[in-house]
Amino acid sequence: MTSFQDISPDVAPALLPAYRELLPATAEEAAANPSAESLDLAAERARSWLPVEELTAILEGGEDKVAAKQAARKILEDSGLAALKAGLPKYYVPRAEAVANAHARQAALLEAAEGAGLDVTDPKVLYALREHVHDELPTDLQWVMFSPNIGVLFDEEQVAKWKPAADSYAILGAYAQTELGHGSNVRGLQTTATYDPETDEFVIETPDLAALKWWPGTLGKTANYAVVYARLLLNGTDHGIHNFLVPLRDRETHELLPGVYTGDIGPKLGYNMQDNGWAVFNKVRIPRENMAMKYARVTREGEYEPARGASRKLLYSSMLGVRAFIVASSGTELSAAVTIALRYSAVRRQGFKDGSDSDEYAVIEYPLQQFRLFPLLAASYVFKFMGATIHELHEELLTAIEDNSSLAVLPDLHATSSGLKAVCSTIKAAGIEECRLACGGHGYLRASGFPDLYTHGVHHNTVEGDNYMITGQTTKYLLKVFTAAATAGSPDKAREVLDSLSARFQYLGEALALAADKPSPRASAATTSEWRRPETLETAFGHRAAFKLASLASQLRKAVASDGVSQAEAWRVALIEVNQVAWAHSMFVLVQNYFARVAELKTDAAVASILRDLGALFALHQMETHIGDWLEDGYVSAEQAGLVRGAVRELLVELRPHTIRLVDAFDHSDEKLGSVLGRFDGDVYRALFVASSYSTLNKDEPSKVWKATLKDMMDAGARRVGPGMLASSL
Amino acid sequence: MTSFQDISPDVAPALLPAYRELLPATAEEAAANPSAESLDLAAERARSWLPVEELTAILEGGEDKVAAKQAARKILEDSGLAALKAGLPKYYVPRAEAVANAHARQAALLEAAEGAGLDVTDPKVLYALREHVHDELPTDLQWVMFSPNIGVLFDEEQVAKWKPAADSYAILGAYAQTELGHGSNVRGLQTTATYDPETDEFVIETPDLAALKWWPGTLGKTANYAVVYARLLLNGTDHGIHNFLVPLRDRETHELLPGVYTGDIGPKLGYNMQDNGWAVFNKVRIPRENMAMKYARVTREGEYEPARGASRKLLYSSMLGVRAFIVASSGTELSAAVTIALRYSAVRRQGFKDGSDSDEYAVIEYPLQQFRLFPLLAASYVFKFMGATIHELHEELLTAIEDNSSLAVLPDLHATSSGLKAVCSTIKAAGIEECRLACGGHGYLRASGFPDLYTHGVHHNTVEGDNYMITGQTTKYLLKVFTAAATAGSPDKAREVLDSLSARFQYLGEALALAADKPSPRASAATTSEWRRPETLETAFGHRAAFKLASLASQLRKAVASDGVSQAEAWRVALIEVNQVAWAHSMFVLVQNYFARVAELKTDAAVASILRDLGALFALHQMETHIGDWLEDGYVSAEQAGLVRGAVRELLVELRPHTIRLVDAFDHSDEKLGSVLGRFDGDVYRALFVASSYSTLNKDEPSKVWKATLKDMMDAGARRVGPGMLASSL
Repeated sequence: MTSFQDISPDVAPALLPAYRELLPATAEEAAANPSAESLDLAAERARSWLPVEELTAILEGGEDKVAAKQAARKILEDSGLAALKAGLPKYYVPRAEAVANAHARQAALLEAAEGAGLDVTDPKVLYALREHVHDELPTDLQWVMFSPNIGVLFDEEQVAKWKPAADSYAILGAYAQTELGHGSNVRGLQTTATYDPETDEFVIETPDLAALKWWPGTLGKTANYAVVYARLLLNGTDHGIHNFLVPLRDRETHELLPGVYTGDIGPKLGYNMQDNGWAVFNKVRIPRENMAMKYARVTREGEYEPARGASRKLLYSSMLGVRAFIVASSGTELSAAVTIALRYSAVRRQGFKDGSDSDEYAVIEYPLQQFRLFPLLAASYVFKFMGATIHELHEELLTAIEDNSSLAVLPDLHATSSGLKAVCSTIKAAGIEECRLACGGHGYLRASGFPDLYTHGVHHNTVEGDNYMITGQTTKYLLKVFTAAATAGSPDKAREVLDSLSARFQYLGEALALAADKPSPRASAATTSEWRRPETLETAFGHRAAFKLASLASQLRKAVASDGVSQAEAWRVALIEVNQVAWAHSMFVLVQNYFARVAELKTDAAVASILRDLGALFALHQMETHIGDWLEDGYVSAEQAGLVRGAVRELLVELRPHTIRLVDAFDHSDEKLGSVLGRFDGDVYRALFVASSYSTLNKDEPSKVWKATLKDMMDAGARRVGPGMLASSL
Repeated sequence: MTSFQDISPDVAPALLPAYRELLPATAEEAAANPSAESLDLAAERARSWLPVEELTAILEGGEDKVAAKQAARKILEDSGLAALKAGLPKYYVPRAEAVANAHARQAALLEAAEGAGLDVTDPKVLYALREHVHDELPTDLQWVMFSPNIGVLFDEEQVAKWKPAADSYAILGAYAQTELGHGSNVRGLQTTATYDPETDEFVIETPDLAALKWWPGTLGKTANYAVVYARLLLNGTDHGIHNFLVPLRDRETHELLPGVYTGDIGPKLGYNMQDNGWAVFNKVRIPRENMAMKYARVTREGEYEPARGASRKLLYSSMLGVRAFIVASSGTELSAAVTIALRYSAVRRQGFKDGSDSDEYAVIEYPLQQFRLFPLLAASYVFKFMGATIHELHEELLTAIEDNSSLAVLPDLHATSSGLKAVCSTIKAAGIEECRLACGGHGYLRASGFPDLYTHGVHHNTVEGDNYMITGQTTKYLLKVFTAAATAGSPDKAREVLDSLSARFQYLGEALALAADKPSPRASAATTSEWRRPETLETAFGHRAAFKLASLASQLRKAVASDGVSQAEAWRVALIEVNQVAWAHSMFVLVQNYFARVAELKTDAAVASILRDLGALFALHQMETHIGDWLEDGYVSAEQAGLVRGAVRELLVELRPHTIRLVDAFDHSDEKLGSVLGRFDGDVYRALFVASSYSTLNKDEPSKVWKATLKDMMDAGARRVGPGMLASSL
């Protein structure tokens, strides 16, 4: 409960009476006088029987996971470190200050962990704690990219030498790949590393402006080491891109080393606590031993030696790990926005009820508001279930790599995670913004939490494979398997190809049939309840994916055969459809996976039924939005399209009583959520008012700007009106 | 051309060598050595014959308008006032400083205008100049809302007394309507104004926290007057919401007056140079004469007297003016984003060409990039043409009000502008973000211009009627006219109703036929070129609008007749479809209006043909995206849906050579655009690097954060690794 006690210590004294007049004086007084909004939210919780804790355990993957999460949260709380409580002020400080605060938060996180006797050099330990801190932290990339990449790119001896220092934060590192004029096409990078046999050193050089390293996180001001991507030049021969560990700054003084220049690239839409940086290397010399030697080495004489036996699969595994993380975090981030939007919608009142001029509807009562928000609530559940599966697949891969056993899961995981990365992060970002817009003006305030959720979260659309480019990887695999089955020689052999694949790819059988001009099937569902069945929806999404894949295969074949263009050119021209195939596939995977996991749950039939309703809402809302995909080939009739819409409307009504408990189950703490509108206690208006006290503009009253500018401007205006008129009228 | 001369004077000296090494030293040297990117953009311009200046004149509404625009731009340039050159640094300063700079910019704007001998109290004069200043200015609402509303709400005597002071910036005003717990439902506001006959004053009072004034622009720190919405209480009787001019701050000291408290509500997603504010009124006394007296007055004795003969139509006209402005500015803002994205796409290279390992495609060569951006280029043209029509309608209304002639245009303008406000601003905001995302990482930087375009532009989705609520006004009118025609009694009388309406509503004839169960028509276009014809597209969009309207009418009738709910309840339950009807109508209006205006142009047939292609791309891309709307009732067959897609692909190819000249025609100056990526000269990489010098993090090197936090954190890490290991390995 918010009270006068919570207002900023820096607010101008002239404004204090207003806060004092409208707010309860103390937390106790606030608790004794709950706001109307708090009572509304309590009433919402009372109207549903859903077991919130059980749902949380389902979402987190078990009660032990929940317990571990709570234990981690408690360690941070018990540490009592002030830097860990970001609270409201975080939205109000200038960037340089915000960066400093975020660094202090990272340091406090390590301190709290060590204080609790934990091994902070274990990334899993660190991540468990880090999950409870709201802000992005400037050194997150230390354990997300820098340290793992040392582990992956460097040989055993090098790993033993450097990884412990990275894991323990003795050195801080950047992962310096992209350049100002060169992005995700790694082969296009231009920074050079030339071997000098006289001194047994590499000379790192930025040849021109476009080769300037640009974007790597922490590169600007924080990192004192970087893994640098550069072209290896040996005796005039270009051996392509290799990696080099380059010291940037003096360990004792943090001053830039000779020939190294780094700076911050400037403020961004979001993620501003991170000093994404640039770097210029002006003939910077590093020992030969600083080249990453796992996949190739350079001898003392300057000979190039590809390493024998080193498997590049580990390289993939680290990239796939990040994609798996993005899928899972899409569910988490979207669920945060949905939590804020639905709690606020339950307490915000707008529009008189029929016949009344004082009783207003809570905005959650409007079907249009439900239509905007409930499908996103459903998507959060669907994405979280998908994240769990991708995580399991990734673990399976890591185990297989460790055991040197079959890596059969690799192509499936690669194809599945690429498309899902694009689909989940795209829907997440747009969904967060939709949640914000559904909260009217107040959603536009930083203190609502939405702006930072969006401006930070949307960077996933671009990084780790742009969402429009990465989908090509999924479609490439689908075509490969499709072609293998289509050219297998016999139905049995085609069946064999399909049988070797997971449930995610079984619809390819239908794609083969369609390609062989078999008649297109028709949906049989004839009532809204038939449309809501998992089997109906899985079949419908499989059909769309099959239809689009078969069409693309035919389009590409025709381009090469009839139009005589190259395979590469046919692909480039078809990129619009390539993207759509990956989307259709990923949507099928989301639907198939969700219902499969729900079916496996050991839970009450009533709870499982609600969970199925969420999945049905997600799928049917997608169908309503893209109904043309199913109408075009007659899979769905006009009557059935009407039933799809009718089923969506039905589900909005049926899920309505459970919405607040369904978001409570996401278990976002107020501290992590960082939103005055999404508070668990519903005390939104008091919190909004208190938050305003932190505005930097409220530190002086009247403002200094008046003296600097406004006074002269108004005086000039007064001269325009004429002194007589002004005196008489005002 | 960007050079070393342009870097920030505040950048740390330690970083200067890097900038010096990679940038031309002077503007002359830069011009003599144009970057590869500049040459790319010049080549783009060389490959099209389109007459850019003529297109600009078409978009601006005539050569005289272009000349006036250029003259206004020149006045600001010639003033030599430093505050008018916001340049790059504007993205880099903390909020309080940005607010101060923006106020100085407003003051300089007035100074430049007065220096040029212009009448700054004429809003049109001011607007013509203001158009050339990139930033939002904190006192924009002075002439957008405060002064116009004095003109509209107050009587002649009051207007004579106060409006000149407002127009001349002798007083600064806020328009204080919304409250913390009460938004667009004006009748729900709770601030009170109680008449005290003893002193002949009103007592303005904030009764509780939810009634706190919250959001009004400039209310926090800038305004010294406010038009306050409050419930008028006379002798215990509530006479509903009225308006009151309330002095907030002392004219000489800018100190808050007794009982008045105002503050800034805090930082937002965007628009942060504006001090949107809160206000508490604690028994604030104002003279009775400060009530807005145009529509009702209170006598000395406290009697309530509605004014006789005062037309409330003017109230509408001011609101409609803002909606017209939002439609027009949607085209302008979207065109700015499209300009940045397409110029950058023409110079950004990514992905090797088939068979090469050095020659990369410009990203504009990818069909997927074209598919994302060209329809938004087309939408910019369509919205600008729509803005011109809405502006003309609004002028027509103002003339009619002035002449006391028929206001027949009012309901049409009201219905048309409500839906278009929602549609154009929604597509604009999403379109700006799509442009940004299509520019990869660099689009995420503030210096790209995109973040501010979006975070500011998207506020139009919420203000002046939330985009999901305002569409109801359009649909209400459509149903009213539809019902009038349907119940006119005879086909001739129905025809009479339709004949009284503009071309925007003629498709209602088809809606009537559909409602009377006449068979649904079928599209006849059988080739891509037939699909590209204006008549084909206008008919198709009219059909969709008619179909949706007839369906909604039937849905509402059924709810009331069969389900027995009230009209109001039937409406609330149907809000999803109500919104869709307004969208279908507005899309028809956009298509119909665009082709009608293009047909009227006196221009080369070849230019007109390109303009028609843009309209066709806009319409066909919309059809492709929402093809289910046309497939469902069989208006379009599966084969025709394929042709629609084929026509879109054709248009992408045909428009490709003209894209840069088509964006040049929007005539955005570099200063106004405020984007390193969208520069006219294409010199993007040099500009990006120079911009980074303004980052506040680059003022100290090494950063103070290192000493404050990082050093200890790394030392603690070093202790974890053990001193021996650290010394030996690094």
